[in-house]
Amino acid sequence: MSKSLLTLTPVETVACCNPLATEPLSEEHAIQIAPLLKALADPARLRLLSLVASHRDGEACVCDLNDAFELSQPTISHHLKVLHEAGLLDRHKRGVWVYYAVRRDALASLADLLGGVGQ
Amino acid sequence: MSKSLLTLTPVETVACCNPLATEPLSEEHAIQIAPLLKALADPARLRLLSLVASHRDGEACVCDLNDAFELSQPTISHHLKVLHEAGLLDRHKRGVWVYYAVRRDALASLADLLGGVGQ
Repeated sequence: MSKSLLTLTPVETVACCNPLATEPLSEEHAIQIAPLLKALADPARLRLLSLVASHRDGEACVCDLNDAFELSQPTISHHLKVLHEAGLLDRHKRGVWVYYAVRRDALASLADLLGGVGQ
Repeated sequence: MSKSLLTLTPVETVACCNPLATEPLSEEHAIQIAPLLKALADPARLRLLSLVASHRDGEACVCDLNDAFELSQPTISHHLKVLHEAGLLDRHKRGVWVYYAVRRDALASLADLLGGVGQ
């Protein structure tokens, strides 16, 4: 694995890669990209991500998500942490609440990676 | 879960869904879509899928993959089976070899689902 690749975040790595159909993915890139897909590969996290993405201004606080979701607050917080650590959600504190926003660059890069196969 | 949804394959379900940013994903759809992402969320499977997709005519036999991959043949066959069962690869026998082809509709639908968030 090259030094430069090690310093990239998963999101930056995805953005570096050509669509899957154009050339075989390297082992190093595959190892970097798989965790993003793994973070997405859970029904509760898919729903949380879509709730944040479709909320007004593309961001939501935990208070909004608690109201819209049947899971316990600790479970929601766990899933949000996984999505944040994978680089799929940004978070910032405003007042007493933590707000989450979708990393549109990360999802767009993943879409480009997969979408190239469909062309 | 509605009866009609139960009869859909995961690929058909993904094609049914609007981009994540446009409306919250339903629990039923999230449960159907997560297995496709889980099948993709493995470095070896990502690489195998890209090898098949970028091979001439978008298909490859196990013989082609054995030559291009450092994993054992049984391990490769296991990963191909997971991708096939998830609906991401088609397979057919021609002569003595089994050939695999990428389900471009499945990957394009996944890309549309994720890509809408980036718009």
